[in-house]
Amino acid sequence: LKNRERLKKQINFISEIDKLKNIGRQTYLIHDDRHENDAEHSWHIAVMALILSEYAEERRLDILRVVKMLLIHDIVEIDAGDTFIYDTEGNKDKWEREQKAAERIFHLLPDDQAKELYELWEEFEEKESEESKFAASLDRFQPLLHNYLTRGKAWKEHNIQSRQVKQRNEHMNNGSSRLWNYAKKLINSAVKRGYLHK
Amino acid sequence: LKNRERLKKQINFISEIDKLKNIGRQTYLIHDDRHENDAEHSWHIAVMALILSEYAEERRLDILRVVKMLLIHDIVEIDAGDTFIYDTEGNKDKWEREQKAAERIFHLLPDDQAKELYELWEEFEEKESEESKFAASLDRFQPLLHNYLTRGKAWKEHNIQSRQVKQRNEHMNNGSSRLWNYAKKLINSAVKRGYLHK
Repeated sequence: LKNRERLKKQINFISEIDKLKNIGRQTYLIHDDRHENDAEHSWHIAVMALILSEYAEERRLDILRVVKMLLIHDIVEIDAGDTFIYDTEGNKDKWEREQKAAERIFHLLPDDQAKELYELWEEFEEKESEESKFAASLDRFQPLLHNYLTRGKAWKEHNIQSRQVKQRNEHMNNGSSRLWNYAKKLINSAVKRGYLHK
Repeated sequence: LKNRERLKKQINFISEIDKLKNIGRQTYLIHDDRHENDAEHSWHIAVMALILSEYAEERRLDILRVVKMLLIHDIVEIDAGDTFIYDTEGNKDKWEREQKAAERIFHLLPDDQAKELYELWEEFEEKESEESKFAASLDRFQPLLHNYLTRGKAWKEHNIQSRQVKQRNEHMNNGSSRLWNYAKKLINSAVKRGYLHK
Protein backbone atom coordinates (compact mmCIF):
# COMPACT_ATOMS: atom_id res chain seq x y z
CA LEU A 1 0.00 0.00 0.00
CA LYS A 2 2.85 2.36 0.90
CA ASN A 3 4.57 1.46 -2.37
CA ARG A 4 1.39 2.04 -4.32
CA GLU A 5 1.05 5.50 -2.75
CA ARG A 6 4.65 6.27 -3.73
CA LEU A 7 4.16 5.32 -7.38
CA LYS A 8 0.89 7.27 -7.47
CA LYS A 9 2.71 10.44 -6.37
CA GLN A 10 5.41 9.91 -8.97
CA ILE A 11 2.85 9.43 -11.75
CA ASN A 12 1.02 12.52 -10.57
CA PHE A 13 4.22 14.56 -10.89
CA ILE A 14 4.97 13.08 -14.32
CA SER A 15 1.49 14.06 -15.48
CA GLU A 16 1.75 17.57 -13.97
CA ILE A 17 5.05 18.42 -15.69
CA ASP A 18 3.47 17.70 -19.08
CA LYS A 19 2.32 21.34 -18.74
CA LEU A 20 5.90 22.49 -19.40
CA LYS A 21 5.23 21.70 -23.07
CA ASN A 22 2.87 24.67 -23.14
CA ILE A 23 5.08 27.25 -21.46
CA GLY A 24 6.20 29.47 -24.34
CA ARG A 25 9.55 31.23 -24.54
CA GLN A 26 10.62 34.31 -26.51
CA THR A 27 13.12 32.27 -28.54
CA TYR A 28 12.18 31.17 -32.06
CA LEU A 29 12.94 27.76 -33.49
CA ILE A 30 15.88 27.76 -35.91
CA HIS A 31 14.09 26.02 -38.77
CA ASP A 32 10.50 27.16 -38.24
CA ASP A 33 8.57 30.34 -37.54
CA ARG A 34 7.25 29.63 -34.05
CA HIS A 35 8.43 30.15 -30.49
CA GLU A 36 9.89 27.19 -28.67
CA ASN A 37 8.53 25.97 -25.35
CA ASP A 38 10.26 25.10 -22.10
CA ALA A 39 10.17 21.32 -22.58
CA GLU A 40 11.83 21.61 -26.01
CA HIS A 41 14.40 24.04 -24.64
CA SER A 42 15.18 21.74 -21.69
CA TRP A 43 15.68 18.79 -24.02
CA HIS A 44 17.94 20.81 -26.30
CA ILE A 45 20.29 22.07 -23.57
CA ALA A 46 20.47 18.60 -21.99
CA VAL A 47 21.78 17.25 -25.32
CA MET A 48 24.14 20.24 -25.53
CA ALA A 49 25.55 19.26 -22.13
CA LEU A 50 26.50 15.87 -23.57
CA ILE A 51 28.08 17.35 -26.70
CA LEU A 52 29.84 20.39 -25.20
CA SER A 53 31.04 19.09 -21.80
CA GLU A 54 34.67 19.27 -22.98
CA TYR A 55 34.40 23.09 -22.85
CA ALA A 56 33.39 23.26 -19.20
CA GLU A 57 35.72 25.39 -17.08
CA GLU A 58 36.00 22.56 -14.55
CA ARG A 59 36.99 19.37 -16.35
CA ARG A 60 36.06 16.93 -13.56
CA LEU A 61 32.37 17.65 -13.82
CA ASP A 62 29.52 15.38 -12.72
CA ILE A 63 27.70 15.42 -16.05
CA LEU A 64 24.68 13.49 -14.74
CA ARG A 65 24.18 16.29 -12.21
CA VAL A 66 24.43 18.92 -14.97
CA VAL A 67 21.89 17.05 -17.09
CA LYS A 68 19.50 16.58 -14.14
CA MET A 69 19.59 20.32 -13.40
CA LEU A 70 18.95 21.20 -17.02
CA LEU A 71 16.05 18.78 -17.29
CA ILE A 72 14.25 20.17 -14.24
CA HIS A 73 15.38 23.82 -13.98
CA ASP A 74 12.38 25.28 -15.84
CA ILE A 75 9.63 23.18 -14.23
CA VAL A 76 8.88 26.07 -11.83
CA GLU A 77 7.71 28.07 -14.86
CA ILE A 78 4.57 25.93 -15.01
CA ASP A 79 3.29 28.21 -12.22
CA ALA A 80 5.62 31.21 -12.49
CA GLY A 81 5.67 31.58 -16.28
CA ASP A 82 8.71 32.30 -18.43
CA THR A 83 10.41 35.59 -17.58
CA PHE A 84 12.28 37.10 -20.55
CA ILE A 85 15.84 37.85 -19.37
CA TYR A 86 15.64 41.43 -20.66
CA ASP A 87 12.36 42.09 -18.78
CA THR A 88 13.60 44.17 -15.80
CA GLU A 89 10.13 44.51 -14.25
CA GLY A 90 9.31 40.79 -14.47
CA ASN A 91 12.68 39.83 -13.02
CA LYS A 92 12.02 41.75 -9.76
CA ASP A 93 9.69 39.19 -8.19
CA LYS A 94 10.89 36.21 -10.27
CA TRP A 95 12.66 34.53 -7.36
CA GLU A 96 9.63 34.71 -5.08
CA ARG A 97 7.23 33.43 -7.74
CA GLU A 98 9.54 30.57 -8.66
CA GLN A 99 10.17 29.54 -5.08
CA LYS A 100 6.44 29.16 -4.48
CA ALA A 101 6.16 27.13 -7.66
CA ALA A 102 9.05 24.85 -6.65
CA GLU A 103 7.38 24.24 -3.28
CA ARG A 104 4.13 23.16 -4.91
CA ILE A 105 5.35 21.19 -7.91
CA PHE A 106 8.34 19.27 -6.51
CA HIS A 107 6.27 18.34 -3.45
CA LEU A 108 3.90 16.35 -5.60
CA LEU A 109 6.70 13.75 -5.40
CA PRO A 110 7.49 11.50 -2.42
CA ASP A 111 9.46 13.51 0.20
CA ASP A 112 12.92 12.15 -0.62
CA GLN A 113 12.57 12.95 -4.32
CA ALA A 114 10.90 16.32 -3.64
CA LYS A 115 13.90 17.26 -1.52
CA GLU A 116 16.39 16.09 -4.15
CA LEU A 117 14.75 18.02 -7.00
CA TYR A 118 14.16 21.14 -4.91
CA GLU A 119 17.84 21.17 -3.96
CA LEU A 120 18.94 20.61 -7.55
CA TRP A 121 16.78 23.55 -8.63
CA GLU A 122 18.22 25.75 -5.86
CA GLU A 123 21.74 24.71 -6.81
CA PHE A 124 21.04 25.70 -10.40
CA GLU A 125 19.67 29.09 -9.34
CA GLU A 126 22.54 29.85 -6.97
CA LYS A 127 25.23 29.20 -9.62
CA GLU A 128 27.88 28.37 -7.04
CA SER A 129 28.75 24.75 -7.81
CA GLU A 130 30.82 24.00 -10.92
CA GLU A 131 27.95 21.89 -12.29
CA SER A 132 25.45 24.72 -11.96
CA LYS A 133 27.84 27.24 -13.54
CA PHE A 134 28.25 25.07 -16.61
CA ALA A 135 24.53 24.30 -16.75
CA ALA A 136 23.74 28.03 -16.58
CA SER A 137 26.18 28.69 -19.46
CA LEU A 138 24.29 26.29 -21.69
CA ASP A 139 20.94 27.74 -20.60
CA ARG A 140 22.17 31.14 -21.87
CA PHE A 141 24.12 29.91 -24.89
CA GLN A 142 21.18 28.13 -26.51
CA PRO A 143 18.80 31.13 -26.94
CA LEU A 144 21.76 33.26 -28.05
CA LEU A 145 22.56 30.70 -30.75
CA HIS A 146 18.89 30.58 -31.79
CA ASN A 147 18.77 34.34 -32.03
CA TYR A 148 21.89 34.43 -34.16
CA LEU A 149 20.71 31.64 -36.46
CA THR A 150 17.28 33.30 -36.92
CA ARG A 151 18.98 36.61 -37.84
CA GLY A 152 18.10 38.18 -34.52
CA LYS A 153 14.35 37.63 -34.77
CA ALA A 154 13.57 37.86 -31.03
CA TRP A 155 16.27 40.50 -30.43
CA LYS A 156 14.70 42.74 -33.08
CA GLU A 157 11.17 42.21 -31.77
CA HIS A 158 12.23 43.40 -28.33
CA ASN A 159 14.62 46.09 -29.55
CA ILE A 160 17.55 44.53 -27.70
CA GLN A 161 21.04 46.11 -27.82
CA SER A 162 24.35 44.24 -27.88
CA ARG A 163 25.30 45.83 -24.55
CA GLN A 164 22.28 44.13 -22.91
CA VAL A 165 23.11 40.77 -24.45
CA LYS A 166 26.69 41.00 -23.19
CA GLN A 167 25.64 42.07 -19.70
CA ARG A 168 22.98 39.42 -19.21
CA ASN A 169 25.07 36.58 -20.59
CA GLU A 170 28.58 37.29 -19.36
CA HIS A 171 28.19 34.86 -16.45
CA MET A 172 28.59 32.21 -19.16
CA ASN A 173 32.27 32.95 -18.61
CA ASN A 174 32.14 31.29 -15.16
CA GLY A 175 30.90 28.02 -16.62
CA SER A 176 32.81 28.01 -19.87
CA SER A 177 35.20 30.73 -21.02
CA ARG A 178 35.57 28.95 -24.38
CA LEU A 179 31.82 29.06 -25.07
CA TRP A 180 31.59 32.66 -23.81
CA ASN A 181 34.38 33.68 -26.20
CA TYR A 182 32.50 32.02 -29.02
CA ALA A 183 29.26 33.71 -27.90
CA LYS A 184 30.95 37.14 -27.92
CA LYS A 185 32.04 36.53 -31.50
CA LEU A 186 28.44 35.72 -32.41
CA ILE A 187 27.24 38.93 -30.72
CA ASN A 188 29.78 41.06 -32.60
CA SER A 189 28.98 39.35 -35.86
CA ALA A 190 25.24 39.87 -35.17
CA VAL A 191 25.81 43.62 -34.82
CA LYS A 192 27.79 43.70 -38.09
CA ARG A 193 25.09 41.81 -39.94
CA GLY A 194 22.30 43.98 -38.56
CA TYR A 195 20.68 41.23 -36.44
CA LEU A 196 21.22 43.23 -33.24
CA HIS A 197 21.47 46.95 -32.33
CA LYS A 198 24.96 48.15 -31.46
CA LEU B 1 42.16 25.83 -36.28
CA LYS B 2 41.51 22.15 -35.63
CA ASN B 3 39.63 23.10 -32.45
CA ARG B 4 37.59 25.70 -34.29
CA GLU B 5 36.58 23.07 -36.86
CA ARG B 6 35.53 20.74 -34.03
CA LEU B 7 33.30 23.34 -32.34
CA LYS B 8 31.83 24.28 -35.72
CA LYS B 9 30.75 20.67 -36.28
CA GLN B 10 29.23 20.48 -32.81
CA ILE B 11 27.28 23.72 -33.32
CA ASN B 12 26.11 22.44 -36.69
CA PHE B 13 24.74 19.27 -35.05
CA ILE B 14 23.07 21.31 -32.28
CA SER B 15 21.37 23.47 -34.89
CA GLU B 16 20.31 20.46 -36.98
CA ILE B 17 18.61 18.64 -34.09
CA ASP B 18 16.39 21.67 -33.48
CA LYS B 19 14.27 20.02 -36.20
CA LEU B 20 13.21 17.34 -33.72
CA LYS B 21 10.85 19.97 -32.25
CA ASN B 22 8.79 19.69 -35.42
CA ILE B 23 8.55 15.91 -35.66
CA GLY B 24 4.99 15.17 -34.57
CA ARG B 25 3.88 12.06 -32.72
CA GLN B 26 0.46 10.39 -32.47
CA THR B 27 0.34 11.00 -28.70
CA TYR B 28 -1.72 13.91 -27.38
CA LEU B 29 -0.59 16.20 -24.57
CA ILE B 30 -2.30 15.44 -21.26
CA HIS B 31 -3.48 18.99 -20.55
CA ASP B 32 -4.00 20.34 -24.08
CA ASP B 33 -5.57 19.30 -27.33
CA ARG B 34 -2.53 18.95 -29.55
CA HIS B 35 -0.06 16.20 -30.46
CA GLU B 36 3.30 16.24 -28.77
CA ASN B 37 6.56 16.30 -30.70
CA ASP B 38 9.71 14.20 -30.40
CA ALA B 39 11.73 16.81 -28.49
CA GLU B 40 9.01 17.17 -25.85
CA HIS B 41 8.64 13.39 -25.61
CA SER B 42 12.41 12.93 -25.23
CA TRP B 43 12.54 15.50 -22.44
CA HIS B 44 9.61 13.87 -20.66
CA ILE B 45 11.02 10.35 -20.64
CA ALA B 46 14.46 11.61 -19.58
CA VAL B 47 12.83 13.14 -16.48
CA MET B 48 10.88 9.90 -15.99
CA ALA B 49 14.19 8.01 -15.93
CA LEU B 50 15.31 10.15 -12.98
CA ILE B 51 12.04 9.71 -11.09
CA LEU B 52 11.34 6.03 -11.82
CA SER B 53 14.83 4.47 -11.78
CA GLU B 54 14.00 2.59 -8.57
CA TYR B 55 11.65 0.35 -10.60
CA ALA B 56 14.31 -0.81 -13.08
CA GLU B 57 14.69 -4.59 -13.21
CA GLU B 58 18.44 -4.22 -12.76
CA ARG B 59 19.15 -2.03 -9.74
CA ARG B 60 22.81 -1.26 -10.55
CA LEU B 61 21.96 0.76 -13.59
CA ASP B 62 24.11 3.46 -15.22
CA ILE B 63 21.43 6.17 -15.17
CA LEU B 64 23.51 8.66 -17.16
CA ARG B 65 23.64 6.09 -19.95
CA VAL B 66 19.86 5.60 -19.78
CA VAL B 67 19.28 9.36 -19.94
CA LYS B 68 21.73 9.79 -22.83
CA MET B 69 19.92 7.11 -24.84
CA LEU B 70 16.53 8.66 -24.15
CA LEU B 71 17.73 12.13 -25.13
CA ILE B 72 19.09 11.01 -28.50
CA HIS B 73 17.01 7.94 -29.45
CA ASP B 74 14.50 9.82 -31.62
CA ILE B 75 16.93 12.11 -33.46
CA VAL B 76 16.89 9.70 -36.44
CA GLU B 77 13.22 10.64 -36.93
CA ILE B 78 14.32 14.04 -38.28
CA ASP B 79 14.94 12.18 -41.55
CA ALA B 80 12.94 8.98 -41.04
CA GLY B 81 9.78 10.47 -39.51
CA ASP B 82 7.83 9.09 -36.58
CA THR B 83 6.48 5.58 -37.19
CA PHE B 84 3.34 4.84 -35.16
CA ILE B 85 3.94 1.58 -33.31
CA TYR B 86 0.66 0.10 -34.56
CA ASP B 87 1.52 0.91 -38.21
CA THR B 88 2.54 -2.53 -39.55
CA GLU B 89 3.35 -1.24 -43.04
CA GLY B 90 5.50 1.66 -41.83
CA ASN B 91 7.39 -0.58 -39.44
CA LYS B 92 8.63 -2.84 -42.27
CA ASP B 93 11.36 -0.52 -43.55
CA LYS B 94 11.71 1.49 -40.32
CA TRP B 95 15.12 0.04 -39.46
CA GLU B 96 16.59 0.79 -42.86
CA ARG B 97 15.26 4.35 -42.94
CA GLU B 98 16.49 5.07 -39.43
CA GLN B 99 19.94 3.62 -40.04
CA LYS B 100 20.45 5.96 -42.99
CA ALA B 101 19.28 8.85 -40.84
CA ALA B 102 21.65 7.92 -38.02
CA GLU B 103 24.54 7.80 -40.50
CA ARG B 104 23.82 11.29 -41.76
CA ILE B 105 22.84 13.12 -38.59
CA PHE B 106 25.28 11.72 -36.02
CA HIS B 107 28.13 12.19 -38.52
CA LEU B 108 27.63 15.93 -38.47
CA LEU B 109 29.57 15.63 -35.19
CA PRO B 110 33.35 15.11 -34.84
CA ASP B 111 34.18 11.42 -35.42
CA ASP B 112 34.60 10.42 -31.76
CA GLN B 113 31.22 11.86 -30.78
CA ALA B 114 29.51 10.57 -33.94
CA LYS B 115 30.68 7.08 -33.01
CA GLU B 116 29.54 7.43 -29.39
CA LEU B 117 26.04 8.63 -30.30
CA TYR B 118 25.62 6.12 -33.11
CA GLU B 119 26.53 3.31 -30.73
CA LEU B 120 24.18 4.62 -28.06
CA TRP B 121 21.36 4.71 -30.61
CA GLU B 122 22.17 1.14 -31.75
CA GLU B 123 22.28 -0.03 -28.14
CA PHE B 124 18.84 1.49 -27.55
CA GLU B 125 17.43 -0.20 -30.66
CA GLU B 126 18.90 -3.62 -29.85
CA LYS B 127 17.42 -3.71 -26.32
CA GLU B 128 20.08 -6.09 -25.02
CA SER B 129 21.85 -4.07 -22.34
CA GLU B 130 20.05 -3.47 -19.03
CA GLU B 131 20.20 0.29 -19.64
CA SER B 132 18.52 -0.02 -23.03
CA LYS B 133 15.82 -2.33 -21.67
CA PHE B 134 14.86 0.16 -18.99
CA ALA B 135 15.07 3.08 -21.44
CA ALA B 136 12.76 1.22 -23.85
CA SER B 137 10.26 0.61 -21.02
CA LEU B 138 9.98 4.33 -20.38
CA ASP B 139 9.71 5.07 -24.10
CA ARG B 140 6.63 2.80 -24.17
CA PHE B 141 5.20 3.70 -20.78
CA GLN B 142 4.94 7.45 -21.49
CA PRO B 143 2.57 7.31 -24.52
CA LEU B 144 0.51 4.65 -22.75
CA LEU B 145 0.12 6.96 -19.77
CA HIS B 146 -0.78 9.86 -22.06
CA ASN B 147 -3.37 7.75 -23.80
CA TYR B 148 -4.91 6.69 -20.52
CA LEU B 149 -4.97 10.23 -19.13
CA THR B 150 -6.56 11.62 -22.32
CA ARG B 151 -9.28 8.96 -22.17
CA GLY B 152 -7.78 6.99 -25.03
CA LYS B 153 -7.82 9.84 -27.54
CA ALA B 154 -5.12 8.46 -29.89
CA TRP B 155 -6.23 4.82 -29.32
CA LYS B 156 -9.75 5.71 -30.41
CA GLU B 157 -8.59 7.69 -33.45
CA HIS B 158 -6.65 4.67 -34.69
CA ASN B 159 -9.17 2.06 -33.58
CA ILE B 160 -6.62 0.26 -31.41
CA GLN B 161 -7.54 -2.88 -29.42
CA SER B 162 -6.24 -3.81 -25.98
CA ARG B 163 -4.63 -6.94 -27.47
CA GLN B 164 -2.44 -4.75 -29.70
CA VAL B 165 -1.45 -2.50 -26.81
CA LYS B 166 -0.44 -5.51 -24.73
CA GLN B 167 1.51 -7.14 -27.58
CA ARG B 168 3.44 -4.03 -28.60
CA ASN B 169 4.29 -2.98 -25.05
CA GLU B 170 4.96 -6.24 -23.23
CA HIS B 171 8.74 -5.86 -23.68
CA MET B 172 8.36 -3.21 -20.93
CA ASN B 173 8.50 -6.29 -18.71
CA ASN B 174 12.20 -6.79 -19.54
CA GLY B 175 13.12 -3.32 -18.33
CA SER B 176 10.71 -3.03 -15.43
CA SER B 177 8.22 -5.67 -14.36
CA ARG B 178 6.79 -3.24 -11.76
CA LEU B 179 6.00 -0.61 -14.38
CA TRP B 180 4.67 -3.25 -16.79
CA ASN B 181 2.32 -4.54 -14.08
CA TYR B 182 1.11 -1.01 -13.51
CA ALA B 183 0.72 -0.49 -17.28
CA LYS B 184 -1.38 -3.66 -17.57
CA LYS B 185 -3.68 -2.30 -14.87
CA LEU B 186 -4.06 0.92 -16.86
CA ILE B 187 -4.86 -1.07 -20.02
CA ASN B 188 -7.53 -3.12 -18.24
CA SER B 189 -8.99 -0.04 -16.63
CA ALA B 190 -8.98 1.70 -20.04
CA VAL B 191 -11.09 -1.12 -21.50
CA LYS B 192 -13.53 -0.91 -18.59
CA ARG B 193 -13.89 2.84 -18.94
CA GLY B 194 -14.36 2.64 -22.70
CA TYR B 195 -11.06 4.37 -23.61
CA LEU B 196 -9.88 1.31 -25.54
CA HIS B 197 -11.51 -1.53 -27.47
CA LYS B 198 -11.41 -4.91 -25.76
